[in-house]
Order: sequence, then structure tokens, then C-alpha cells
Amino acid sequence: MKALVYEGPGRIALQDRPDPVIQAPGDAVVRLVKTTICGTDLHILKGDVPTCEPGRILGHEGVGVVEAVGSAVSDFKPGDRVLISCITACGKCDYCKRGMYSHCTTGGWILGHRIDGTQAEKVRIPHADGSLHHLPPGVDEEALVMLSDILPTGYECGVLNGQVQPGSTVAIVGAGPVGLAALLTAQFYAPAQIIMIDLDDHRLEVARQFGATHVLNSGRDDVVAGARALTGGRGVDTAIEAVGVPATFTLCEDLIGAGGTVAVLGVHGVKVDFHLERLWSHNITLRTRLVDTVTTPMLLKTVVAGTLQPGQLITHHFALADIMNAYQTFGAAAANHTLKVIISP
Amino acid sequence: MKALVYEGPGRIALQDRPDPVIQAPGDAVVRLVKTTICGTDLHILKGDVPTCEPGRILGHEGVGVVEAVGSAVSDFKPGDRVLISCITACGKCDYCKRGMYSHCTTGGWILGHRIDGTQAEKVRIPHADGSLHHLPPGVDEEALVMLSDILPTGYECGVLNGQVQPGSTVAIVGAGPVGLAALLTAQFYAPAQIIMIDLDDHRLEVARQFGATHVLNSGRDDVVAGARALTGGRGVDTAIEAVGVPATFTLCEDLIGAGGTVAVLGVHGVKVDFHLERLWSHNITLRTRLVDTVTTPMLLKTVVAGTLQPGQLITHHFALADIMNAYQTFGAAAANHTLKVIISP
Repeated sequence: MKALVYEGPGRIALQDRPDPVIQAPGDAVVRLVKTTICGTDLHILKGDVPTCEPGRILGHEGVGVVEAVGSAVSDFKPGDRVLISCITACGKCDYCKRGMYSHCTTGGWILGHRIDGTQAEKVRIPHADGSLHHLPPGVDEEALVMLSDILPTGYECGVLNGQVQPGSTVAIVGAGPVGLAALLTAQFYAPAQIIMIDLDDHRLEVARQFGATHVLNSGRDDVVAGARALTGGRGVDTAIEAVGVPATFTLCEDLIGAGGTVAVLGVHGVKVDFHLERLWSHNITLRTRLVDTVTTPMLLKTVVAGTLQPGQLITHHFALADIMNAYQTFGAAAANHTLKVIISP
Repeated sequence: MKALVYEGPGRIALQDRPDPVIQAPGDAVVRLVKTTICGTDLHILKGDVPTCEPGRILGHEGVGVVEAVGSAVSDFKPGDRVLISCITACGKCDYCKRGMYSHCTTGGWILGHRIDGTQAEKVRIPHADGSLHHLPPGVDEEALVMLSDILPTGYECGVLNGQVQPGSTVAIVGAGPVGLAALLTAQFYAPAQIIMIDLDDHRLEVARQFGATHVLNSGRDDVVAGARALTGGRGVDTAIEAVGVPATFTLCEDLIGAGGTVAVLGVHGVKVDFHLERLWSHNITLRTRLVDTVTTPMLLKTVVAGTLQPGQLITHHFALADIMNAYQTFGAAAANHTLKVIISP
């Protein structure tokens, strides 16, 4: 089969690889119908994820059709149309029992990282019962690829961890795909104000179309003063950091009001300054999280109900044969107005 | 009256000052029976609290007898025996309505800070209805001075913010008075293990008497390895930082397990390193808080029930006339086995 393979820092290639096979009783083999590229794949490509070794097929998102299942799989059978979760969950370890699938002792984020992933014609999914979801009928399957990772990430790591409440003021720093996923799902909770902050005017315009009540360009506006003005001088109730660099974390520290919550959604590569000399007495909460995908079943229901329209995040389409172009387009996403790309094997 | 007055960095003195009088309808004047010294008073003395100006009578803790009340005070009358909360609360502002009395727009921590405090024969208490508590009958009044600040601080900022749960493992870094207050109140929630960490063997011995299941001397033991060994390699569920310096914050970052909570109880004077490059994916929660004293009525009930014995924290007694010696003793607390001192006007 064709598969996109990480060959080492800065190098990926479309290669011919053997089809995956069932290796354990809990496995399924899924034929991919649609997949996508994640910001994390770009981190791997840069060499930032040393646990991903050369030779690895990348990708941890997709929808497809079950081709084969191991003897222990009870909830899926060949022919079932499925959503692949980016997180693999055994359902039995201490972390899984706490709903913290991200830290499953034999799963977690392994697809396209520690085992071969979904940017291929087929993929092996361990712990299939805990890691696949049946596709609801009558829904655009392509759009559901956004439920493999980016929407549960925006929702769990941003909105839930940020404790977004009705009537509250939410600032989202970073209007890239994951920040926009937080923006879409924050609206479940009817906040009074959602302030979107980015350097790129096009992304801010998209954010406005997606429901932001206010936008601030951090390259041009005094963002802290702007947010203070919108909150009677108090600062925001929730600040969602959706970039992953020290400067945006510091901005969240400056934006947050007493009693507020900072949710870290960005993937961080270096330590940050935490201004406890000011914040020790500000009654703040700060939360980090690798997505657990515990909310995927709930998110599927919001898609069926029409409350959430994940297709909004898709801007480009590529065939698997053209995936090198897809990486190029997604790698310069802000410059060419790209959000998420769909790849069809 | 006699009062302990802050005269500027490094300087305090027992002075003669006029008796306080009712200034606003919500005020009460309370004659002090017992008061104490807080670590925060030492911070003021060092000049670390610029909002406290020279000429201020220090102290924000105490029990006493109401001498006079303003026309708007409805819950207290002259002769009532009362506990003074370190936090003054109007009960009406947005923060008070959220139970965040620490940020009351006309209160918060003002006693012995922005207005004259309790290390005196008498004190004026604004918003008396929101800031005093009736003393329960039949309880050692002196011990209740520990409920003005240190016990609600240990409980709210350490135990509640740390989300201590039955069966969990709690590490408390710092076995000074506030760390011990967290230790005493953590036991309300039946954690499986409470690991007390300090540099001082005497304090660790006290911690063991107060209920710590394990003690580690951070000057001698490999604390991180010790805590890992006690938790099957996972790290602790709750880490309570009860010192207030960067090194102890870093230790908490090293101790905390995936899914755990770090509660910042220490008063911090400088920023700290926050290792997001490691913790972004560890599903941790980090909380700061200036005590709100919303739990004082509940804590009073635990004292009446005998569940909490606040007198354990008291090691020394002084007359108000001898308060300069009390400061000296408390200022070198670890060296001379001091926890809290009681001062009798």
C-alpha cells in the first residue's frame, strides 16, 4: 500500500509499504477513506518529537471502513464505517478507568508516533473497541475527520479545562485550527464574550464568521488593554493558550482576571515564566491536558444535531498520491489561508 | 492603647495609639483577647509588602469582645465574643457574591495592611457582619485564633485547591505552620498517604505527630525518588507548595503525577519556571489563592466536633507588652521549634 513515511528530521516520503495485519486479539485493520495532517505531524517533521522514529507512517486522524478484526473485538465487524480516535485506549488500566485515556499505559497517543498511523491506505488500530467510533448515518463523513483530534482537543483541553461558563468572557490566543476548534465548542456554553487574538487578519475574520464576538490583532492592538476594556478592568474569566510559545503563555497571564482559568492548548517545547509573584494571590486555575477523547461520543451527537459543523474547518483537498503537496500547503497554513486539509487515499 | 506599629522596613515598635472608633455604619470595634503573628507580618517587616505603609498597626488575626457597633451591623452587639477573620468582606460586590471574599472591592486582606490591625488592645473591623464570627461556647478561645487565617489558608489554598481525595497521595512541601495547617485539614478527606517534606527534622517529627504518613528531609533524601517509590512510579495526586520560593515550586512540578493538582500555598516574591515543555501533556491542574475564609464557619464546626484541634499549632505565649520578643521568637521559628505564638493584650 501507499503510505507517508517519516524518514528523519525534515524528510518525509510517499512509500510502498506492506498492508497492516491483525497482531493482537484487540486489533482492527481499517481501510482509510479520509485522513488529514495535524500540527503535531509538522512537529515530528521538524524533529521535535524524538519518540517518533524514522520509518514511521505518520497520521493519527481519519475515517474508514473496518476490514478485519481480532478475536477479542466485540463492538466492530468488517464493513463497519468508523471514526478513528487519535488516542488509543485499552479501557482497563488505572488511567483509562479515570477517563484519562491520553495516559493509557498501552495506548495514549501512539498512532503515527510509536506505531504506524493513518496517512496510508490502511492502518492497524490496537484496542479497537476503545479507540474506534461508529459513524452516525446521514452525516458528511469527511467532516467527521475533524473529530479524530482537533475538535476533542479544542473542546477538552481548551473549553472544558478552561471552565467556560454562561455569561463569561473567554479570550482565545491563536486563531489556528485548534484555536478555532475551541471557539466553535466554547459556544456550547453561551459565554457572553469570546475575544479571538491572532497576528493574522484573515484568521481573525474567519474567527468572526465562526462566532467570535471580538477580535484583536496582537501585532497591532494593545491586547491586554482591549481585553480589560471589555471586562470592566477585571480581565477575562477564561484564557485559552492555543499557540504553544512562551509569549502567548505570558499574554494569557496578563489577560486573566482574579478567579479565572488559563487552559493550555498549545504544544510547548520550552519552559515558560510563571509570574507567581503576581498571581499567587489571584485565585487562578491553570490546566494542561493531552486530549483524552472522552467527549468524542458527545461531539458526534452535536454534529448529528447540527449544533457543531466540523466541515467549516476544512479548506483544501488532496489525493494521497499528492500528500507531499498537502504537507507543503498545511506547513504554510496561515500564509495561504489554510485551516485543515482532507486527504483521500 | 498599646499597639505594635510598622515604622518602615526592618522597624516595628510598641506605641501608644488612640483607641479606634466607629467610622462607618458597618463597623465594629473589638477589644482583643488573643492575637498572633503571621508569616505575612514578617514579609511586611522585611519591606516586601509596599502597600503596607509606615505607621500601620500590624496583625490580622485574633479573638475578642465586641465593644461597639455601627448602625448597620445586625448580627453582632457589644459583649459578643468573636473570631476576627483575616479577610474583610462586604458581601455585596461581584467578588463577594462569587464567594471570593479575598478580592472584595472594599475589603479583602486590609487588616494590618491597608488599615490598622489586631496586634493592639482594640481594632476597628469594617463590614463587621461579613468579617466576624460568633465564638462557639465551650471551646478553648485561644485555639480559635488559628481560625482567623492559618487554618482556612491551609484548608482553602492547600487542601481544597489541591483537590485532596480519599485514597489519594498528597505531598506537602514545607512543614511550617501553614503546611501543618494543610496537613491537619487534608485528613478530613482520608487520603491514603500524606508525605511531608521539609529541611528541618524537628518539624518533620511534628508533622508525623500531626498525621503525616511519611516524612522526607529534602536536605538529605532524594525526595522525588522517594515520592515515586511510594506511588508506584506515578508521582503524587496533590502537591501543596507551602514555602513560597522557586525551588519548592520546581519540586512540586517534579513530584506531581499525570492528572494531579499543584496547590500554591506559599507567598511568592519572584517568578518561577513552569516546565510546560514537559507538563503540557500531563493533564495537571495548578491553583493559586488568597484565602477567602468562606470555610471558617465549617472549620468552627470541626473544632466543636473535636475533628480539628487547632491548639496543636500553638507553642509559645507572650503578653502584648512583650510582643517585640514574640516577633523575635517567631522570626527564627524553625531554629527554636516555634509554630504559632499567642499574644495576650
